[in-house]
Amino acid sequence: MAQRHRDTAYAPQAGPPAVVLDGAPAGPAPLGALSAGEVVSGYLHEQASTFLRALSQSAQGDDDGAAAGLLLRRSARRIGATLHTYGTLTDPGWADPLRTELGWLSSALAHEHQHAARLARLLSALHRLASEPDPQARDGDHPDDSDDPAPAPTKGSAAGTQGPLAVGAARAGALLERQLTLARTRAHSAALQSLGSSRFHAVADAVAVLASEVPLAAAADAPATVRLPPLAEAAHRRLAEAAAALPLARAGHPYNADAVRAALGPELTSDLQDTPWHRARTLLRLSRYAAEVCPPDEPYFEGAAGSRDTGENLRDRLKDAARLLERHREAAESANAVAAAARTPRIAPATAYALGVLHADQRQEVEAARFAFARLWQRTPLPQPTTATVPGSR
Amino acid sequence: MAQRHRDTAYAPQAGPPAVVLDGAPAGPAPLGALSAGEVVSGYLHEQASTFLRALSQSAQGDDDGAAAGLLLRRSARRIGATLHTYGTLTDPGWADPLRTELGWLSSALAHEHQHAARLARLLSALHRLASEPDPQARDGDHPDDSDDPAPAPTKGSAAGTQGPLAVGAARAGALLERQLTLARTRAHSAALQSLGSSRFHAVADAVAVLASEVPLAAAADAPATVRLPPLAEAAHRRLAEAAAALPLARAGHPYNADAVRAALGPELTSDLQDTPWHRARTLLRLSRYAAEVCPPDEPYFEGAAGSRDTGENLRDRLKDAARLLERHREAAESANAVAAAARTPRIAPATAYALGVLHADQRQEVEAARFAFARLWQRTPLPQPTTATVPGSR
Repeated sequence: MAQRHRDTAYAPQAGPPAVVLDGAPAGPAPLGALSAGEVVSGYLHEQASTFLRALSQSAQGDDDGAAAGLLLRRSARRIGATLHTYGTLTDPGWADPLRTELGWLSSALAHEHQHAARLARLLSALHRLASEPDPQARDGDHPDDSDDPAPAPTKGSAAGTQGPLAVGAARAGALLERQLTLARTRAHSAALQSLGSSRFHAVADAVAVLASEVPLAAAADAPATVRLPPLAEAAHRRLAEAAAALPLARAGHPYNADAVRAALGPELTSDLQDTPWHRARTLLRLSRYAAEVCPPDEPYFEGAAGSRDTGENLRDRLKDAARLLERHREAAESANAVAAAARTPRIAPATAYALGVLHADQRQEVEAARFAFARLWQRTPLPQPTTATVPGSR
Repeated sequence: MAQRHRDTAYAPQAGPPAVVLDGAPAGPAPLGALSAGEVVSGYLHEQASTFLRALSQSAQGDDDGAAAGLLLRRSARRIGATLHTYGTLTDPGWADPLRTELGWLSSALAHEHQHAARLARLLSALHRLASEPDPQARDGDHPDDSDDPAPAPTKGSAAGTQGPLAVGAARAGALLERQLTLARTRAHSAALQSLGSSRFHAVADAVAVLASEVPLAAAADAPATVRLPPLAEAAHRRLAEAAAALPLARAGHPYNADAVRAALGPELTSDLQDTPWHRARTLLRLSRYAAEVCPPDEPYFEGAAGSRDTGENLRDRLKDAARLLERHREAAESANAVAAAARTPRIAPATAYALGVLHADQRQEVEAARFAFARLWQRTPLPQPTTATVPGSR
């Protein structure tokens, strides 16, 4: 079952294309006989190169610019996460400020995309809510758990018979489109401003340093097999602890109605409820990126009690889990956008009604994402290596 | 596994109390060597006696009156169902009109209770939607799938901090309370009027005939073991066919979002979507009552290919299935009541918003009931007896 790791040296240039679409190395990167600093430097070089390449493309046209923006955010997140997880291996006086600046940058660049995605999600949901399914014809097709494709219009759809509900739905859609397009435009201007700022140029300069030489600490001289696994393990453990604190048993019970509970509660109630899940999402991301540097199919992980999974398998499932918590965040933030739209003065009752239905629908999506995550996570907890069985751990 | 049926004669007076709370005989009623007419008459005698006893109590105080009203409706439904399923055994010129009148009566008596139950359900849901759960403290408790108990107020509940959403929820509650209390009061008057009408007295007279002697057809002279199973089987088959036509594969997939799809659709969309489920509910009821007359642990059912269940077990699960489809109906009708309230002219946007959330919540309950039914039904299809293996079937 367990995939043997190859004893080849870490060689980003020699292997398959080092950067694939999602920014992760295409194959596992065995630690071999390299030092911890060499492995971390190799990973950071790669990400820094992606960042700089994306930067030079980001000034181009709309589509290319958007793709470049995505790569820019992805590599910025990976560099920041690596400086965080493997922070003891780099010069702290240099790494810590850069990490803060990378966080600022990826946040500044993400907003435009987030507003656009939120609007698309909400308009698609409104369309779905105003459509009539033909249950007989579609039974046997399991509804897709993943992203909502825009459903094809069915007979009897809102467009056909304009009842008062359909009018409300159309008005709610127009209101959301107005508000989220405005927010998107503002975020676009802010992103352009960020990219032209001296603050951004300082970040780009620091990343350019990473692309050639990473300022390392003395601890980075130790062998990678000794130094990296405990740091990766610490990242996984923080995630495992945060996930264990989530109400997974309840969330794994379908139709528990927990997420919608907050829909008419006091302001911030749903935020309070969502926060631990958002935190797990952040830690999951750190854990995934940590595993890209120090892949979990190393002997360290094979010694894990109870885990018979190959690293590949685990990595896939962490990616699935990340996708679900990302869906959770999108649904939660979309519900917040709907609640904000409902606070617009002087909206018609029909509009408010449609927004209420849409809000509850998005909270339902929050619940569905929690359900799917709970099921996946309870089937796939992280390997829990026993430090005693790990050769060479601190 | 299979419980052997006792060869005692059918003797309602000699056995355990013939009528228990839900109106079903306490134990299985083996067909023995009785004629079909004797078995059906025995069951109808019993139900007619319950009806007449409940009638004499229904004039009493509120609580006793409500309990008597429940028994009245239950026995009326069972008599009507028996005259339907086993109709070939009774005098059709007499049974068919009585069946129609019993349908009118149980419907006339049910409305008051339904409006009250709907209001309680919606106020409880509003309370739930405006409350904040403490997920950490409650994990491990699986949420109850059965009826909603009114949740205890939690800290941070809407009563504590009156935000705009809580105000909307309170107003929506007041609006629903006004409308459903009015509907309930009207239904109460209508029920009283029905009970005093000459039409009702004619029904009561016909039921009194049933309590002493059932007008039978010639076919009723045949042995019960020959005549009853095919009729009961036909009722089960109608249910099985209606259930097989439901989109159970989709419904059994959690969070399919099918039921809420209609929430902003054209008027009547959700009714169209719900109708096949309501029909299955009616047929399930007929099937259950048919099994009370001709219990499924008879040899007829034991011969069913693939079914290793005892009749007792099957009866319990049919009851569970009926409870789920009843919950489906209540949630669907509650959602309709919310939609009707939202059409009230000049309501505030905050009220409309809360009604929208509540509507989607109730459609979610519809979906949850379908999910639970689909799971139960796919685990418990009705036994499918092969006519070839049944001794003595027509």
